[in-house]
Amino acid sequence: MAMHIDRLCVVGVGLIGGSFARALRKAGVVKEIVGCNRDKDQLQKAIDLGVIDSAETDISKAVTGAHLIVVATPVGAMESVFAQIAQKLDPNAILTDVGSSKASVVAAVRSAFGKIPTNFVPGHPIAGTEKSGVEASFPELFRDRKVILTPLPETDVAAVLRVRQAWAAAGAQVVEMSVQHHDQVLAATSHLPHVLAYSLVHCLAQMDDSQEIFNYAAGGFRDFTRIASSDPRMWHDICLANRDELLGVIKTFGMELEQLAKALRSGDGQYLLKVFQQAKEARDRFAEKK
Amino acid sequence: MAMHIDRLCVVGVGLIGGSFARALRKAGVVKEIVGCNRDKDQLQKAIDLGVIDSAETDISKAVTGAHLIVVATPVGAMESVFAQIAQKLDPNAILTDVGSSKASVVAAVRSAFGKIPTNFVPGHPIAGTEKSGVEASFPELFRDRKVILTPLPETDVAAVLRVRQAWAAAGAQVVEMSVQHHDQVLAATSHLPHVLAYSLVHCLAQMDDSQEIFNYAAGGFRDFTRIASSDPRMWHDICLANRDELLGVIKTFGMELEQLAKALRSGDGQYLLKVFQQAKEARDRFAEKK
Repeated sequence: MAMHIDRLCVVGVGLIGGSFARALRKAGVVKEIVGCNRDKDQLQKAIDLGVIDSAETDISKAVTGAHLIVVATPVGAMESVFAQIAQKLDPNAILTDVGSSKASVVAAVRSAFGKIPTNFVPGHPIAGTEKSGVEASFPELFRDRKVILTPLPETDVAAVLRVRQAWAAAGAQVVEMSVQHHDQVLAATSHLPHVLAYSLVHCLAQMDDSQEIFNYAAGGFRDFTRIASSDPRMWHDICLANRDELLGVIKTFGMELEQLAKALRSGDGQYLLKVFQQAKEARDRFAEKK
Repeated sequence: MAMHIDRLCVVGVGLIGGSFARALRKAGVVKEIVGCNRDKDQLQKAIDLGVIDSAETDISKAVTGAHLIVVATPVGAMESVFAQIAQKLDPNAILTDVGSSKASVVAAVRSAFGKIPTNFVPGHPIAGTEKSGVEASFPELFRDRKVILTPLPETDVAAVLRVRQAWAAAGAQVVEMSVQHHDQVLAATSHLPHVLAYSLVHCLAQMDDSQEIFNYAAGGFRDFTRIASSDPRMWHDICLANRDELLGVIKTFGMELEQLAKALRSGDGQYLLKVFQQAKEARDRFAEKK
């Protein structure tokens, strides 16, 4: 079955929403793209860059007549966005999102609609850069990247298929898992690393000689802290949205670090070596995969 | 004053020692390079690659007649290395090292020589990759990188100048600071990030579904954990050698993380946002510098 979308509506035309629009346009599977943003400057930029065909600041107008609606706002804004969509959603339209935490998005949808619409497919592309805004978007962002869909018991299989096809057209590999499993996995591999990177840089920036300290930071530090240049408000939203899972992995990590400090204090080199070796093996295996 | 070294002796011909030899040879400031390693395979590779002219497994023979001796072994081996050098060191020869922790190296030298030789100049190039071994060495490794020298009250000014010139010939920017300040700065910007990266990967690798978890790790995780692919034994040595300073920054970081977890638990979004914003500003300033 060939994929075709007459009218795509992207709510939140930033790095992810903009790249999704560009990718589908480049794949030739979309006729018309309407973009919706609170920020009129971003919206104008999206038109100037040819990412969207028309612009709307009113969500209920933007979604009217759309066949596929992708919500790509920060997760903190989604409850309000879904509430506005709920009033106007065509029962045949397919609704999906790109939020980094899925339980919070599902809760927002349930609250807005009073139930889970059968055409709602929660989704999350595992892709991004530390940049943000539509000017950072590009059509290849999702190529060979994974997109996780977390369909619910209420979700219509045909809706899942349509969303799968759209992501496949963008070059992504689509997988499915439960909402809870998604939130656990992402807390460990994405949300915790961001918290650690932000915390480390903040910790160093608070030191007396912080200006000087950064002078002697090298390439390892640069890579390690790259994600601390990510959008603070977006990550504020994600951390709060996936709070319970994130607190769980922060606790596990804290115990790991305390164990290591304890070994260091007592001069237990064997423990350090074992941890470092196992970590290197795991990291090397991960690096080979890609 | 033009820089020239008749006979350079590199003890520990790996990534750093090998790159130093290659850089000085490329700069045309060295006549003969003798390499010394416990590992005969590395030594043979170093000869095959043209990094060194001759090879010695016996340190006391290797240093005989050398004008500049650079100790580039893992810091854990330095006490034994300096003990062997002490027996044969020409009083006119200049001795330096590239160890990542300076107090431990200075203690090793003091123990080996019974005092600090006036021609000993402790040093540390802020450069490296996650790779190791002479096959990973290249002459440009130190170009535009900082090298920290930590001369002691006993150190001869002329010896410092010679070591400065050698590093300048390798393309590096040389700065001087105290041993203690070096160890504090490096604990914060290098040793702590390595410990965090190793701990995170180890923590994830211990989880029940670790194989699956790594499948959904993206570019941010890849960069964040790159340093966890570093040589485990080398980092075991560095952590133990700079134990006190490292324990200090681990403690500070632990408090920072606990503070953040507390804010997250209580839903204090303002605190999260403030930390993330300050971290992003500091990290962006750092990124612009280089």
